[in-house]
Amino acid sequence: MTIAPWRDPALPADARVADLLSRMTLEEKAAQLYGVWVGAATDGDGVAPLQREMTAEYDWDELITRGLGQLTRSFGTAPVDPALGAQALARAQRRITAAGRFGIPAVAHEECLAGFTAWRATAYPVPLAWGAAFDPALVEEMGRRIGHDLRACGVHQGLAPVLDVVRDPRWGRVEETIGEDPYLVGTIGTAYVRGLESAGVVATLKHFAGYASSAGARNLAPVRAGVREFADITLPPFEMALREGGARSVMAAYTETDGVPVSADPGLLTDLLRDAWGFTGTVVADYFGVGFLETQHRVAADEAEAAHRALTAGIDVELPTLKCYGTPLVTAVREGRVPQALVDRAARRVLLQKCELGLLDEDWRPEPEGPVDLDSAQNRALARRLAEESVVLLDNPDGLLPLAPDTRIAVVGPRAADALAMLGCYSFPSHVLTHHPETPLGIEIPTLLESLRAELPDAKVTFTEGCGVSDPDTAGFAEAVARTAEADVCVAVLGDRAGLFGRGTSGEGCDAEDLRLPGVQAELLDRLVATGVPVVLVLLTGRPYALGRWHGRLGAVVQAFFPGEEGGPAVAGVLSGRVNPSGRLPVSVPRVPGGQPWTYLQPPLGLAGEVSSLDPTPLYPFGHGGSYTAFTWADVHAPEAGIPTDGSYDLSVTVRNTGDRAGAEVVQLYLHDPVASVTRPDVRLIGYQRVELAPGASRRLTFRFHADLSSFTDRTGARVVEPGDLELRLAASSTDVRHTARIRLTGPVRAVGTDRRLRCEVFEHLD
Amino acid sequence: MTIAPWRDPALPADARVADLLSRMTLEEKAAQLYGVWVGAATDGDGVAPLQREMTAEYDWDELITRGLGQLTRSFGTAPVDPALGAQALARAQRRITAAGRFGIPAVAHEECLAGFTAWRATAYPVPLAWGAAFDPALVEEMGRRIGHDLRACGVHQGLAPVLDVVRDPRWGRVEETIGEDPYLVGTIGTAYVRGLESAGVVATLKHFAGYASSAGARNLAPVRAGVREFADITLPPFEMALREGGARSVMAAYTETDGVPVSADPGLLTDLLRDAWGFTGTVVADYFGVGFLETQHRVAADEAEAAHRALTAGIDVELPTLKCYGTPLVTAVREGRVPQALVDRAARRVLLQKCELGLLDEDWRPEPEGPVDLDSAQNRALARRLAEESVVLLDNPDGLLPLAPDTRIAVVGPRAADALAMLGCYSFPSHVLTHHPETPLGIEIPTLLESLRAELPDAKVTFTEGCGVSDPDTAGFAEAVARTAEADVCVAVLGDRAGLFGRGTSGEGCDAEDLRLPGVQAELLDRLVATGVPVVLVLLTGRPYALGRWHGRLGAVVQAFFPGEEGGPAVAGVLSGRVNPSGRLPVSVPRVPGGQPWTYLQPPLGLAGEVSSLDPTPLYPFGHGGSYTAFTWADVHAPEAGIPTDGSYDLSVTVRNTGDRAGAEVVQLYLHDPVASVTRPDVRLIGYQRVELAPGASRRLTFRFHADLSSFTDRTGARVVEPGDLELRLAASSTDVRHTARIRLTGPVRAVGTDRRLRCEVFEHLD
Repeated sequence: MTIAPWRDPALPADARVADLLSRMTLEEKAAQLYGVWVGAATDGDGVAPLQREMTAEYDWDELITRGLGQLTRSFGTAPVDPALGAQALARAQRRITAAGRFGIPAVAHEECLAGFTAWRATAYPVPLAWGAAFDPALVEEMGRRIGHDLRACGVHQGLAPVLDVVRDPRWGRVEETIGEDPYLVGTIGTAYVRGLESAGVVATLKHFAGYASSAGARNLAPVRAGVREFADITLPPFEMALREGGARSVMAAYTETDGVPVSADPGLLTDLLRDAWGFTGTVVADYFGVGFLETQHRVAADEAEAAHRALTAGIDVELPTLKCYGTPLVTAVREGRVPQALVDRAARRVLLQKCELGLLDEDWRPEPEGPVDLDSAQNRALARRLAEESVVLLDNPDGLLPLAPDTRIAVVGPRAADALAMLGCYSFPSHVLTHHPETPLGIEIPTLLESLRAELPDAKVTFTEGCGVSDPDTAGFAEAVARTAEADVCVAVLGDRAGLFGRGTSGEGCDAEDLRLPGVQAELLDRLVATGVPVVLVLLTGRPYALGRWHGRLGAVVQAFFPGEEGGPAVAGVLSGRVNPSGRLPVSVPRVPGGQPWTYLQPPLGLAGEVSSLDPTPLYPFGHGGSYTAFTWADVHAPEAGIPTDGSYDLSVTVRNTGDRAGAEVVQLYLHDPVASVTRPDVRLIGYQRVELAPGASRRLTFRFHADLSSFTDRTGARVVEPGDLELRLAASSTDVRHTARIRLTGPVRAVGTDRRLRCEVFEHLD
Repeated sequence: MTIAPWRDPALPADARVADLLSRMTLEEKAAQLYGVWVGAATDGDGVAPLQREMTAEYDWDELITRGLGQLTRSFGTAPVDPALGAQALARAQRRITAAGRFGIPAVAHEECLAGFTAWRATAYPVPLAWGAAFDPALVEEMGRRIGHDLRACGVHQGLAPVLDVVRDPRWGRVEETIGEDPYLVGTIGTAYVRGLESAGVVATLKHFAGYASSAGARNLAPVRAGVREFADITLPPFEMALREGGARSVMAAYTETDGVPVSADPGLLTDLLRDAWGFTGTVVADYFGVGFLETQHRVAADEAEAAHRALTAGIDVELPTLKCYGTPLVTAVREGRVPQALVDRAARRVLLQKCELGLLDEDWRPEPEGPVDLDSAQNRALARRLAEESVVLLDNPDGLLPLAPDTRIAVVGPRAADALAMLGCYSFPSHVLTHHPETPLGIEIPTLLESLRAELPDAKVTFTEGCGVSDPDTAGFAEAVARTAEADVCVAVLGDRAGLFGRGTSGEGCDAEDLRLPGVQAELLDRLVATGVPVVLVLLTGRPYALGRWHGRLGAVVQAFFPGEEGGPAVAGVLSGRVNPSGRLPVSVPRVPGGQPWTYLQPPLGLAGEVSSLDPTPLYPFGHGGSYTAFTWADVHAPEAGIPTDGSYDLSVTVRNTGDRAGAEVVQLYLHDPVASVTRPDVRLIGYQRVELAPGASRRLTFRFHADLSSFTDRTGARVVEPGDLELRLAASSTDVRHTARIRLTGPVRAVGTDRRLRCEVFEHLD
C-alpha cells in the first residue's frame, strides 16, 4: 500500500506540502490559519480588555472537520495538573486528527516567557533579571529546560522571548524585556531562542516590532519612532535571534508606528523579515491583533478587509482564536475580494512548519512520551542560579552588607512576606491563578522573609508589612518604625505586584504614570530612614524606580527584578553573603520619577543637563553593579591603531579578583563614535563577558572588535561602516570606563548587509 | 554720473544682486552670512548655556570692512531706552556702511514673540493665549502693531512666530506655542505673519521643524518622530504661514529628528522648503545652531565642516554671531574643502532680501522716521482685548462667577501680586531684566490683586501669598487658610514664573518633570479647598497643569496663559463679570500629572484607557471653555451627501445667544475619518469661527469643507484624499459635539500637492 506524497517522510517538505495543498479545499486551507482558544472566558476579563466580541461563534465539532491550525493555551488558561493536561491535549489532538480529512493535528502553543506558564511549572526569573545576569549560557540552558517541559506536555510552540528593547521604563511590560540595550537584548534573547529551539520547540520572537516605544508608555499606544531608531535599536535583537538563534516564528506587534499598524505592514512583515532577512517560518498575530485592524486601528472597514490586510502584510496565523480568518476570509475569497493566493501562501508556511515538526507524519502520536514533572530539581537549581546571578548590588557604601549572622533585623515592607513578590505578570500564578483564588500556587516559592530567616538562623528577625504595595493606607507605618528602632538594621523590602491590566503595578497594561515607588512605599521608606537605623533597601520590581530621593541615606540598595521561585533564597543569600552579588543593571535607575522616557542610548544633546531644568543623568547607570570582592583590570593591550573599514582589532585585559571571596566581574565593551554622518549614541554596548573568579584568580580576556560593530543606519537608510576615529571603552558600567582604545577606521564608507558580524567575540584564557 | 547696476532701483533685484556678487570678494560674500552680537555677555550665562566658547574673537572695526550680514538684538540684549536705542542702531549702521566697500547695512533682527522684546515695549499675551482666543484677525492686528514698532526702531527682521505644535505639555516652551493642533497653530500663526509682514518686517518662522517633539520634553533632546507625524502635524503650520502669510525667513530648529540634525538636513531646508514649497527667502540658524553641528550633534569634525554641512543643508545666515561662517568657512573655501558655490548661493539669498528691504538703495537712511513709543495706548488697548478674549473659564459649576461686587474675597497665592506673573519667558522683563535687577520694568503691569481691587472697589479683599512659586516653604499656609476662612470666597492665584534655563518654571529650558503645579502650590490649594470656603482657582501659567486632584471641589476654575501687561485687568474683568469669558483651550488639561506625552490628536489606541492603567482622557478637552451666557446651535443644514474627492460641501448652523449678556461662542469643526489606509486621529480641528453676539442675537455660519481638508500622508509619503465615509462634527470643543454631518467622498484616491486648500472657509451672515 502506498501513502500519499504529503505523508511520505522521504520526500522533501516542499513537495509534501505542495501535494497537500493541491488536495485541500479553501476552507481546509483557511482552517490552518487560525487557532482556537477552548476554555477562555468569554467576558474578556481573563486576558485582554479589548477582546470582547473579538471571538467568532463556532461549533467545535463542525469546526474541526476542516482541520485546525493551532490550539491556544491548553495549559495556560486555567489551572490543570500537567500530566492530566498533557493527556487532555492529546485527546483534543486525537479528535482533531480524527475529524479532518487529512488527520493533521494542531500546533499547540503556550506562553513561556519566564518558564512554561502552566500550573506547577517552574517560575524562572523574568527576562529583566536575565539581562542583569549578563550570562547567555545560563539563559540558553533555561530555554532548553523550558523547551523540554513544553515538549513533554505535547506543546510545539512557545510565545517567547520578548525582544522589545526598553524605550520607556514606565511601560508595564518592561519586566518582560531584557533591558534597554539592543546588544544585550539580542545576545541574551538569542541564547533563550537557541535553548528553546534545541528542545524542538518553535520559539516566537515578539513583539515584532516597536511595541516598547508606545507613546507615554501606555500599553498599545501609537509608536513615535523614525526609521533609524527602528533600524538601529528596535530591530537588531530580532535579526540576531533569527540569524543566530534560528527562531521559527515571529509575532506581529499590536502597535502602529507612525500611522502604520504592524499587522498591516508588508514592509516589516514581508519585505524586511522574509525578503531581506530570509525568514521562512510563520508569522503569528498577537492575540486579537488581526481583528484590531478593524476595531482599533481602523484601517479596515470589516473583518474580511482586516484579514486581507493582515494576510497581505504577512500574518499567517490568527491568534488566539478565529475571527477574521474564519468565515469572513473564506467568504471574501469566494467573492473575489481577497486573492486565494494569499491564503495559499500562509497555509503553505503553516504546513511546512507542521511538516518540520513531524505533524504530517503518519507515525505522529500526541501522547506524552514520559512522566511530566514541570518543576524538577534540575529546574529549581537552574532557577536558583539565574536568580543569584541577577541580583544587583546598587550601593553598599559602608559595607553594611553582608549582614552579620547575629544581627537584629527589622524586615519591613509589603514585598517581604509575599511569594508573589518574586514573580512577573506572565508567571502562571500572577497571570492565571488570580482568577482561581482557591487553587494553591502549585510550586514552592519561599518568601524573602522565610529565606532570610533560614539563611541567618542566629539573627533576630522581626517583620511588619508597613503598608501595602499600592494602597494608600499608612496605618502600619508606626509599627514598622517601632520595629526598626529596635533593630540593628532594617531590611526594607519594597517593590511591585505583577498583574495584568491594572491588577498589578507592573505587567501587561500596568503602566506607570512616573517612576515613583508605588503606593505609599516611598513615604514608608522616608520614615524608616528617618529612624537613623541603617536601612538596606531591597527592591523586588519589574522596572527601575527613581531612587535619588534617598541617595546617600541608605545603608545599602539591592535591586532584584522579579527573581522567580528561587528568588527568596537568592536575595537572602546576597544579604547574608553566601552569594556574592554579580548582577549588572540592564536598565538605568533614574534620580527623579518624571522626565521620562529616557534610556542611556543618547546622543550628546540627549545627555546634556544644562539646556534643560531636567537633568536626565541616572543615579545608577546602565551596566552598574557592585560586589563583595574587588577586581583589578590590568595589562591592557589596546594600542592606537588604524584598521580598514572591514577590519578587526583585538584588545585584551586581565581581570583579577583581588579580594577574599569568589566573585564575578562583568567586563563590558562600549563604543564611542566621536563624529558620524548622523548623530550617534554617546556610548553603546558592543560586547561583554561575565567572568567568575576565585579569590586571587585572574583571567585574560580578548575582545575581537570588528568594524561591522560600528555600523549604523545612515541618512539614506543604508547600514554603513564609516571611516574615522572610534573609541572602544573597556568599562565596568556604561559610565565607569577603565581603559579606552583609540582606533581609526580607514578606507571608504562601507555598506554592510545581513551577513555582517553581529557580535564581538570574546576569548577567555588563563593568565 | 551713473550708479552701479546693483544700486539701481530701476533694475530687477536679481540683476542687481548678480552685479553685486560679481564685484564681491569671497570674504565680502561670507560676511553677509553671519550676524554679530554686540554686547552679549561672554560667559554665556545671559542667554544659552551651551553658547560658551561658541563665539569667534573678532575686531569690530576690522570686521565691518568686509560688510556684515546681520546685527543681533541691539534692543533685546540689555535695557536701553527705545529712542536712544534707535539712534544707537542707526549709528552702528552708519559705521557699517562707511567701513565696507559697498556701504550695505546689516539686517537688524530682534525677538518679538509676544511683542518687541525691548525695554518699554508692549508685552502682549503669549502665543498660547492667542491660541485660546481663536481670533486670527486680532492676532494679525497685533502682528502689524509689533511690526510697526520694530520698523520705528530700525529693525528689519523679527524672530517670530513660533509655529511648533505642542507634542508634550511638559516642554518649557509650550507657552511660546499656539497650541496642540496644527490647524489652530497654522491659522493663528499665519495671521501673526501677515501682520508683521504688512508692516514691512521680515517674519521668521520657527523652529523649523520638530523642536517641540524633543524626547521627554527636555529642551534640545532628540526628536523621535516618523515621517507621517512630521508631515501631518509638524509641518502644516509652516506651509500655511509661507503660502498664505508670505513669511520671508525661516529659522532652522536646534534639534535632530531620528538622527539627522535639522541644521544639516538638506531634505528639510532645501528639498522641501525651497524645491517643493517654493520658498525664496532666507534660512537663518537658531542661535549657535551651526556650531552645534560640531559641538553637540557631532556630525562635523570642525567648524569648517559644520559650516559646510549647514550651507549644504540650506542655512544662509549664522546667528547670533560669527563662528563657523567666519574665518573657518573662508579658509575652507580657499582650500577647496567647501565649494564656493555654496557661499554664493547663500549670499545671493541674503542680498536679495536686503535689496527687497531697500538696503541696497542709495537713498537708504538708518535714522528712525518718527518718534518712538513702543507701548502706545493703541498697543495697550490691543493687548487688553487679546488678553480678555484669551481667558478660559474651565469650570463654574454653580455659577460662583462672576463675583458679587461686595464679596469678602481672600486672594491667595504666589501669582496674585507679582507683575511678572503676567509675562512669558520671551518678554523683555523675564528674558533680560532678570540680569538688571536695578532697572524698572519699563511698562505698567497691573497685578491681578491690584486689578481685582480696582475692578471690585466695594469688595473686601485680603491678600496673602501662601507660598512661593517653586520653593518648598509651607510656612505661609496657615495665614492663607486663616484669611480664607474669614472670606466668602477664596481666589487662589497659582501658576508659573517664566524664565530662561532653570530660572523659571516655564520658558526656554524650564521643562517640567510632570504636570503637577510647581512647588507646594498643590498642597496650598488642598488646604484652601479643605476650608470649605468656595475656591476660585485662577491659573496664570505657561502650560496646562493636571487638575484632576481637585475636580468637583472647586467653585470655579479660570485658566489664563501669561496674558501680558493687560492681563491683570483682563482676568479681574472675568472674575467681576465685566468681561464675559470666551477663551477656549488650545491644549488639553490632563487629569493626572504623569503619563505624558499626550495631546488630543490620537488614533483610537491612543485614547483607549482599558488596555492600560493610564487613562489619558483629559479633564478639560482641547477646545473647551465656558461663558456667562448661553448659546443655542440650531437650524443645522448638513444633509447626508456624497461628494467627489475633489469636491466641497457646505454645512450651516445658526448660533444664538440666549442669555442676557453679550458673549462670544467659538464654533469648531472637527473631522472624524472612520477608516483610512493609515491610522488617523479620532478627531482633528479643520475649521473654527469666533462669533460675538449681543444678548438675543444670532448669526448663521456656513463652513465650506473641501475634500482637501481630509488629506493626509499615506504609506508612500504622498498626501492623498481617500474616498470613503467622513464625519464633520460641529462642536463646542473636541468632545462636545453638537451636530454631525455624514458625507461620503466618492471617486478615486486623489493625490494633492502644495496647491491644495489649507483652510475651511467660513461665511458669516445675519440670520
